[in-house]
Amino acid sequence: MCDLCCFQGRLVRMAVGWFYLSFYALSLLGLMCVILTVYWMQLWHGGFAWDGTSRLMFNYHPVFMVAGSVVVYSAASLVYRLPQSWVGPKLPWKIGHAVLHLLAFILTVLGLVVVFQFHNHENTVSLYSLHSWLGIVTVFLFACQWFLGFVVFLLPWVSVWLRSLLKPIHVFFGAVILFLSIASVISGINEKLFFSLNNNTQPYSSLPSEAVFANGTGMLVVAFGLLVLYILLVSSWKRPEPGILSEGQPLLRDGE
Amino acid sequence: MCDLCCFQGRLVRMAVGWFYLSFYALSLLGLMCVILTVYWMQLWHGGFAWDGTSRLMFNYHPVFMVAGSVVVYSAASLVYRLPQSWVGPKLPWKIGHAVLHLLAFILTVLGLVVVFQFHNHENTVSLYSLHSWLGIVTVFLFACQWFLGFVVFLLPWVSVWLRSLLKPIHVFFGAVILFLSIASVISGINEKLFFSLNNNTQPYSSLPSEAVFANGTGMLVVAFGLLVLYILLVSSWKRPEPGILSEGQPLLRDGE
Repeated sequence: MCDLCCFQGRLVRMAVGWFYLSFYALSLLGLMCVILTVYWMQLWHGGFAWDGTSRLMFNYHPVFMVAGSVVVYSAASLVYRLPQSWVGPKLPWKIGHAVLHLLAFILTVLGLVVVFQFHNHENTVSLYSLHSWLGIVTVFLFACQWFLGFVVFLLPWVSVWLRSLLKPIHVFFGAVILFLSIASVISGINEKLFFSLNNNTQPYSSLPSEAVFANGTGMLVVAFGLLVLYILLVSSWKRPEPGILSEGQPLLRDGE
Repeated sequence: MCDLCCFQGRLVRMAVGWFYLSFYALSLLGLMCVILTVYWMQLWHGGFAWDGTSRLMFNYHPVFMVAGSVVVYSAASLVYRLPQSWVGPKLPWKIGHAVLHLLAFILTVLGLVVVFQFHNHENTVSLYSLHSWLGIVTVFLFACQWFLGFVVFLLPWVSVWLRSLLKPIHVFFGAVILFLSIASVISGINEKLFFSLNNNTQPYSSLPSEAVFANGTGMLVVAFGLLVLYILLVSSWKRPEPGILSEGQPLLRDGE
């Protein structure tokens, strides 16, 4: 084996090792985001109940939104970054990508269902805050993205030419939806804290333990989103187009 | 002139035309974001006064943040996408990029100054909401980004090798800061509306005209951010690396 091949092999192993390090850090961070949101609702808001009436039903809303529209959505987006997906047929990975996104979408819709049911029961209006406007636009874009992605990239009758043309748009809107989801989550946590910490003995501005905890959870969601963006952008972790792998995959070439 | 050169020339003219269309749409959108924020504060919150004491001083906060950390910041980020910047020496464009970012940073710091002065005068706590935590982290990252950008890319003693190594990181954090700024603006508008529309006759949930106006302004800021992201990502609008222009610039190759 020539020196160049050895060197290229070492670079590929380094890239794979660095990918797994980032991947494990991301998994841990994503798990923490969900667990902390559950803990927030459990400890300070009385936990959960699927009874269609009480405030405890609302408590699923932040959990489903963080889990669905951020964490599972990101896992679905990163499927093609797994080194195992780089070789062999693409179809199983496409199906995995679509199924995970469908799971993310179902969780997100459940997140909407609980908040609408809660508002109906309380006779309060839905969809008035900027948080809710942004959130509903994000879910609408997510639905369009999944449906069009399924029709264009998974069903067999669309030409390779059209797929190549639409792929950058699909990728762009994939990142856009994640960005909008995170902005919705941040404004939602902020709004929830202004609602729940509005008494005079322990206002939000006195930074009680709930405020520190939920603010910290929000900042972790942001950190998670930035790590996802980083992993998506590193070019050496992208699935090589056919024929490129054998010609030497460029490593950590450019973050643009 | 050969057919291929004619075809390439037409493609370049199309790319330039499409760039200017996007650029004018973006300028209009950015101007509208600032004007609508000024109008919101003028019409519903009594306008502006730089007196260090009153609520009217706070009203500069949303205006400076939208203008500085979103609109001027984006203009600064897009300097290298102007076709005029593609040819000739890079230094004047670098200086333009740095000066515009400095202007954005000054506006952002002024946006902080007014809110801290208002809080001090009202004897209320600063930096307790998730909006403020995210905002202050964003301004800190912006300061680091500007200082490091100045030292690495503008001062003459850093090697070309180190600049190439750090450029993707600089570009990545440039996009990250814009994303965080927009998330901060969205949570800030949401928070402000919960503060100001908290009376029983006209709550936020009844969607009075101020709520519709400010929610709409927030959605415009998001649309502006997405258009900036789109312009930044289109590869045919990127400044070609030395030698590439003469070899035929790839046009609208990939949105990734």
